[in-house]
Amino acid sequence: MSERLVVIGGVAAGMSAAAKAKRTNPNLEVIAFEKSHYVSYGACGLPYYLAGWIDDVERLVARTPEKFAKQGVTALVRHEVVEVDYEGRRVRVAALDEGREFWQPFDYLVVSTGARPVVPELDGADLPGVYTLRQPEDGVAIREALAGVERTVIIGAGYVGLEVAEAFRAQGKQVTLIELQDRVLPAADPEVSELVLAELQKNGVEVLTGVRVEGFGGNGRLQTVRTSAGEVPAELALLSVGIRPNAELARSFGVATGPTGAIAVDAELRTNLPRVWAAGDVAESAHLITGEPYWLPLGDVANKHGRTAGTVIGGKKAAFKGVVGSAITKVFDVSVSFTGLTEAAAKRAGFAAKSVWIKSADRAHYYPNPHPFHVKLVYEEGSGRLLGAQLVGHSNDALRIDALATLLHQRGTVEDLRALDLAYAPPFSPVWDPLLVAANQAK
Amino acid sequence: MSERLVVIGGVAAGMSAAAKAKRTNPNLEVIAFEKSHYVSYGACGLPYYLAGWIDDVERLVARTPEKFAKQGVTALVRHEVVEVDYEGRRVRVAALDEGREFWQPFDYLVVSTGARPVVPELDGADLPGVYTLRQPEDGVAIREALAGVERTVIIGAGYVGLEVAEAFRAQGKQVTLIELQDRVLPAADPEVSELVLAELQKNGVEVLTGVRVEGFGGNGRLQTVRTSAGEVPAELALLSVGIRPNAELARSFGVATGPTGAIAVDAELRTNLPRVWAAGDVAESAHLITGEPYWLPLGDVANKHGRTAGTVIGGKKAAFKGVVGSAITKVFDVSVSFTGLTEAAAKRAGFAAKSVWIKSADRAHYYPNPHPFHVKLVYEEGSGRLLGAQLVGHSNDALRIDALATLLHQRGTVEDLRALDLAYAPPFSPVWDPLLVAANQAK
Repeated sequence: MSERLVVIGGVAAGMSAAAKAKRTNPNLEVIAFEKSHYVSYGACGLPYYLAGWIDDVERLVARTPEKFAKQGVTALVRHEVVEVDYEGRRVRVAALDEGREFWQPFDYLVVSTGARPVVPELDGADLPGVYTLRQPEDGVAIREALAGVERTVIIGAGYVGLEVAEAFRAQGKQVTLIELQDRVLPAADPEVSELVLAELQKNGVEVLTGVRVEGFGGNGRLQTVRTSAGEVPAELALLSVGIRPNAELARSFGVATGPTGAIAVDAELRTNLPRVWAAGDVAESAHLITGEPYWLPLGDVANKHGRTAGTVIGGKKAAFKGVVGSAITKVFDVSVSFTGLTEAAAKRAGFAAKSVWIKSADRAHYYPNPHPFHVKLVYEEGSGRLLGAQLVGHSNDALRIDALATLLHQRGTVEDLRALDLAYAPPFSPVWDPLLVAANQAK
Repeated sequence: MSERLVVIGGVAAGMSAAAKAKRTNPNLEVIAFEKSHYVSYGACGLPYYLAGWIDDVERLVARTPEKFAKQGVTALVRHEVVEVDYEGRRVRVAALDEGREFWQPFDYLVVSTGARPVVPELDGADLPGVYTLRQPEDGVAIREALAGVERTVIIGAGYVGLEVAEAFRAQGKQVTLIELQDRVLPAADPEVSELVLAELQKNGVEVLTGVRVEGFGGNGRLQTVRTSAGEVPAELALLSVGIRPNAELARSFGVATGPTGAIAVDAELRTNLPRVWAAGDVAESAHLITGEPYWLPLGDVANKHGRTAGTVIGGKKAAFKGVVGSAITKVFDVSVSFTGLTEAAAKRAGFAAKSVWIKSADRAHYYPNPHPFHVKLVYEEGSGRLLGAQLVGHSNDALRIDALATLLHQRGTVEDLRALDLAYAPPFSPVWDPLLVAANQAK
């Protein structure tokens, strides 16, 4: 009799694990349960759906249940796993649209329950007009609501907040972006925040930093956001103040979480329990610079987690060694990218961190339409070991971050960076590549 | 008494060496002789000047002699060093606009005489209307001539030929591109050539491959290009069939050239002769993959050569360890980048080379305006060591090559590539970065 893999949560990590396990071991029975209406969707695309650049939210779906069925993978939407009987090797599933429940036996289990938005306990947070953005259904609701509103407030100036600010401006809405900390994109170093702020303001986003949201007011629906700096009238508010791993179900049957609150896994994505894997936004990764567990809930990491777990479950060797913390985001015409540690994070991690911050250009000085390109390098005093980098550029220039991510994986130094033979031509770079300019200034 | 550095050839390498030597040792007297009208110009920008995207050829100049003078560096244009008396530590200089010559003593010498276009011995190659492109003066002459012509022929489909084809099309001219070998960009592998060909044809360039140019005809000025495939009428022809190092002057006083014909140098850019350095297009570099001397006559390499030589001459430590062979070029809307060895070059170098060639996209499948993105990886069978890569993309996507160049410097494998934490967001990449897709397919 064939063995059965049950996947709890069928988005990026879950469906990657499901498909890869089936491809690796075609004898495996694979069934995935997903509580939303969609499997295998790109949640990272929701801001662009809100902007109106994607017509149908179903475009975010990479593969439908029908396509998975052709690969021999059963994917059931609107099915929520509500309990795991680990000793009995079975899960209890609620078929949400059918009002029934059933027990599903398993031999192997992948927990890929993702993450959810933090909703602060604020007066009026349940008023119609106050949203979070995580699933396609959230996107549809916000986009529908958006048609009838003029004034919007976005609470939290992290990646999602910034991307949605651009989306709402693309829809012609007034946007007030409120951030509790003293600057936008507080996960970045202050130099980067300053450039992002300028781009937001240039594009008509009103930015309030160092401001606390205290509640929401309105007569039956949102009319005003109450803050430490006074009231901000708005018909629509998005809470984007962070996310948390959905690790409760896993903890309920004995899966151990790590210091980040996400599920602790090894390089094969195994949890502490035999036969149980965790993958995606609910799981940790090793941070290759600090050596500590790290939570990097991004779609590309989730896919790699899922592929690794699926390969191992299918009976072949695979390992996910960890992350260096690379990310990139578009804020209007500016691209911002990261890898490794910020200067602040490096110091917190105990490194004797130094940095350089330079302004260069994205092309030769004589080539038309140049844009500024900024580089921050963070490195260890003495050894010169590269610890991290932040780039701010235009268009897709910030993809240069991948060279620095590669160097971090190889534990390279700023001297190694200085020696790199990077590609040059006038439309793409000044004759001294901005990365090399920065490396040359790092002492 | 202060020592004196004499620099022969004041473009990228020469002026970098001059400026860096002066900054490193302010007591040094530094004098550079340049036979053209300009120092410190970006020859790589000439195609864009021809396209009309740069108004004044002087925009290509990074720093004028006046600016160098403020740094304490004497830069003399229209001064050609015609002889080196090595034993006597002096050079004979022709002041071209003054019709006089003089002897200039030196303590240290940098030979940065660059390269020149190959001009095949063809009947009629000296007819007015037949050009090569290397110096600003060439650019000015061609652009002036271009105004009065309709039909152009470009001979040689390497980087310069392709870039000038785009430039001439931008000026509304008919362009026939003739290549002796059986495909355009023959330095690339055939898959890449095919995509470049399609982009050229899409943009109205007539491409003749496997065609030999046999001569030029015309009554007092060019009217026709005679080829193995018949006559091609044209009022302007550009010969872009390659360049050669200007190593004759150096050889005349005992400087040794290497197997490439360029000057052999060590990591400090020293030649075989004490007190004599060579830098830029006239000098070799070590190829970090083959371990052999290599000639990579590009502006970024020249600047690094010059900076290294200048630092050493100024009395500090510096080393240029070599190149992996990175390059990038724009062909209309397509960007093509390279690093390391092509599959053909890897086999010639004796590697048991394998390759993968994949087609992916430059962004998430749902993000607007996607473009194809192609990756070729060349790697060693068994070890999986990465040997080279070629990317074809849109806009500046091909900057991704820098991650692969970094991996080559670190002698990484395709398995190392698979493990990289590259930056992902929907506007910049599919959730599986094209580089990772290729690495996953490399067995």
